[in-house]
Amino acid sequence: MKKLVAEFIGTLWLVLGGCGSAVLAAAYPELGIGFLGVALAFGLTVLTMVYAIGHISGCHLNPAVSIGLFVGGRFNKNELLPYIAAQVLGGIAGAGILYLIASGKPGFEMGGFAANGYAEHSPGGYSMLAALVSEIVMTFMFLIIILGATHSKAPKGLAGLAIGLGLTLIHLISIPVTNTSVNPARSTSQAFFVGDWAIDQLWLFWLAPIVGAILAGLVYKYISPETEE
Amino acid sequence: MKKLVAEFIGTLWLVLGGCGSAVLAAAYPELGIGFLGVALAFGLTVLTMVYAIGHISGCHLNPAVSIGLFVGGRFNKNELLPYIAAQVLGGIAGAGILYLIASGKPGFEMGGFAANGYAEHSPGGYSMLAALVSEIVMTFMFLIIILGATHSKAPKGLAGLAIGLGLTLIHLISIPVTNTSVNPARSTSQAFFVGDWAIDQLWLFWLAPIVGAILAGLVYKYISPETEE
Amino acid sequence: MKKLVAEFIGTLWLVLGGCGSAVLAAAYPELGIGFLGVALAFGLTVLTMVYAIGHISGCHLNPAVSIGLFVGGRFNKNELLPYIAAQVLGGIAGAGILYLIASGKPGFEMGGFAANGYAEHSPGGYSMLAALVSEIVMTFMFLIIILGATHSKAPKGLAGLAIGLGLTLIHLISIPVTNTSVNPARSTSQAFFVGDWAIDQLWLFWLAPIVGAILAGLVYKYISPETEE
Amino acid sequence: MKKLVAEFIGTLWLVLGGCGSAVLAAAYPELGIGFLGVALAFGLTVLTMVYAIGHISGCHLNPAVSIGLFVGGRFNKNELLPYIAAQVLGGIAGAGILYLIASGKPGFEMGGFAANGYAEHSPGGYSMLAALVSEIVMTFMFLIIILGATHSKAPKGLAGLAIGLGLTLIHLISIPVTNTSVNPARSTSQAFFVGDWAIDQLWLFWLAPIVGAILAGLVYKYISPETEE
Repeated sequence: MKKLVAEFIGTLWLVLGGCGSAVLAAAYPELGIGFLGVALAFGLTVLTMVYAIGHISGCHLNPAVSIGLFVGGRFNKNELLPYIAAQVLGGIAGAGILYLIASGKPGFEMGGFAANGYAEHSPGGYSMLAALVSEIVMTFMFLIIILGATHSKAPKGLAGLAIGLGLTLIHLISIPVTNTSVNPARSTSQAFFVGDWAIDQLWLFWLAPIVGAILAGLVYKYISPETEE
Repeated sequence: MKKLVAEFIGTLWLVLGGCGSAVLAAAYPELGIGFLGVALAFGLTVLTMVYAIGHISGCHLNPAVSIGLFVGGRFNKNELLPYIAAQVLGGIAGAGILYLIASGKPGFEMGGFAANGYAEHSPGGYSMLAALVSEIVMTFMFLIIILGATHSKAPKGLAGLAIGLGLTLIHLISIPVTNTSVNPARSTSQAFFVGDWAIDQLWLFWLAPIVGAILAGLVYKYISPETEE
Repeated sequence: MKKLVAEFIGTLWLVLGGCGSAVLAAAYPELGIGFLGVALAFGLTVLTMVYAIGHISGCHLNPAVSIGLFVGGRFNKNELLPYIAAQVLGGIAGAGILYLIASGKPGFEMGGFAANGYAEHSPGGYSMLAALVSEIVMTFMFLIIILGATHSKAPKGLAGLAIGLGLTLIHLISIPVTNTSVNPARSTSQAFFVGDWAIDQLWLFWLAPIVGAILAGLVYKYISPETEE
Repeated sequence: MKKLVAEFIGTLWLVLGGCGSAVLAAAYPELGIGFLGVALAFGLTVLTMVYAIGHISGCHLNPAVSIGLFVGGRFNKNELLPYIAAQVLGGIAGAGILYLIASGKPGFEMGGFAANGYAEHSPGGYSMLAALVSEIVMTFMFLIIILGATHSKAPKGLAGLAIGLGLTLIHLISIPVTNTSVNPARSTSQAFFVGDWAIDQLWLFWLAPIVGAILAGLVYKYISPETEE
């Protein structure tokens, strides 16, 4: 139960911090943080939580991560569904707090919030195919980083740095394509408030991250040193 | 006494570095660092001080942090008031040095300095309620990061990185809302020089951070592993 | 073989992440990440891979790095050619994925992709001599950082941080000069798709990095402590 | 002798990287890195060199640092002058390489290079007094960070991170005031090429950093734990 509370708080923070920086601060006139600041914010939500709750729940904060770790042999099947539920609920809670803050600005309109999308809802107008490739490959590499950096032969204690900054990197590349998901809980949290097209397109942001994560779990097993403990 | 001098110097640095980057460099024409640079600066004041004076005083630099650590069972009641006094005085000293430098520019006008505010004094015009929610939640998460990253089961030596970059993250999200406080000593230091409305609104930047910190202390006790030494 | 797969994936990531951020996100209207974001992205590809696959292949991702490590006495002659082949192929694969994503935007034109160039193909119009000096010196310093940070007397576990952020630094300085290579595999991957002038100028981006790397291998041997294990 | 070669290379890198990013990339149209990128570049020169040559020479790269460490009881008097000579020469060599690259752009004019200045040569027009206060206080805090992060009770291995990012922070605050020195070798290297007013104002960028460093050496001795080994 403590693990689930930790996953709930952590995913709340991922959505509030990452999507919050996008909604509140990215396009502030003159001084706004832009996509670079949003990319940093998403990465830092994970970096901070790895050090804060990693020793409690492992700090997945993402159904694709939980599934990829399971395929890679690092996570227990029985915990899979409860973790995913806690992540989705935490994400929605984070989006709710963000809505509460953002709507405190006179003239606030939610628009697309920080929802993920493709084609006419891609920030840069990228096609569904481009979005699919991008989300699969980005999640694949995210899981390679996670599986590698938490391997028993990797330097101790620095996994949080590598994983958090890895998520920053993924956003630096792919925000223009899909607004970057690689995390079905994050996508669901925004679609929950935006509704409409964001719900219609949500399938891609569950399918692609999970496919990428499963592939990474299989590939990493092949390339990893055998002396895993 | 050495601890109090360390807290004084550290909080001086937090205000001089964080508020200084905002006042001196954020809006420099063309090349200015924007909110992203200010967010980084605030975080790096804490990151650098954790490694510089963490082994002396624990490097709180913030009354809300001292109170949250006390509630979380990590800080001694007897030291609470002296720490808070050193932090407030250090903050004011940092603001004084900043004033001395900033006023060396011809045509300098203090305006709002880097004071925190809500409603008509929020950078983005956010309401008092939005400001209250933002400061409570941000301080809550800041303390979760601090309590978690300094837990005996967290990776050794990396707490400073997580905590400093956590403060950067908090600024990436919430500068538009309140100019970001999460630290009553930082808010007081600016209100001391700005006076007027900054004093009138100062209550929120003591109340909200302390409420958030107390809640975090209670929650972290519940989710933390029992084997704390 | 596992090592070669790791080098392939890692170099794929370096090109997809670094060049991808440049092609997809650098010049996005208003919110684009600029050269600063691209510099960060290149560095983070290496940082993340050091922690993910460093314990598998050593994470070179760059023919100049493999050669410099060989000259510095840290890498086996027999592995040199297979590593370089895996790196070049991985880079081309990364560029192919990037092309697939980038071309999903209506109206996409490849232009120079993220190819390296000098004189009329230098971003800032820098001469061939300036490009040659820049690439030699930047690769020289990159290898000094790598040889130093992985030395047995350097702090354990932090080499990935220093090396990744070193590549970020190199890009912060020299993107305007050559678009920054210091890596023949990265340059080849882009020239492969751009053809034409990018192929004509490719010689410099093999020659200069290798010369810089060899010099660094020799110099570091001279200044390094004798107690290397 | 190896130590002096290391200090020479390191200071060359500090000037080439820090001043180079300012001269070549800061004001690049649309995509330039701005003061934020320059601040990051300066910090990363030091961060990378601490891990690369820290175990050889201690990686001072700065006469004020050598003097502050001497006053703080961490550096040998006999090595002081040779270190300072190597730093100044290395800085000039770095500026020479930068000149060689920068002048490869058609229409290049050196202007102020990346020289430090006050009053009419301060980027933001800050007075001599503001410049003096800024350089003294910034160097004071830089040395507090260095003395603290390398103390035997500080976390092992992370001093390079704290010190490098500390220099980044110092630049985030004070580039508009003096272009930020805190390092007489860095200032001298630029004045050597600019001549004229940069030579006339050079006294301040030796005096202020050294005063700040000496004060920090004395203060840190007072607040540091007695169990220093």
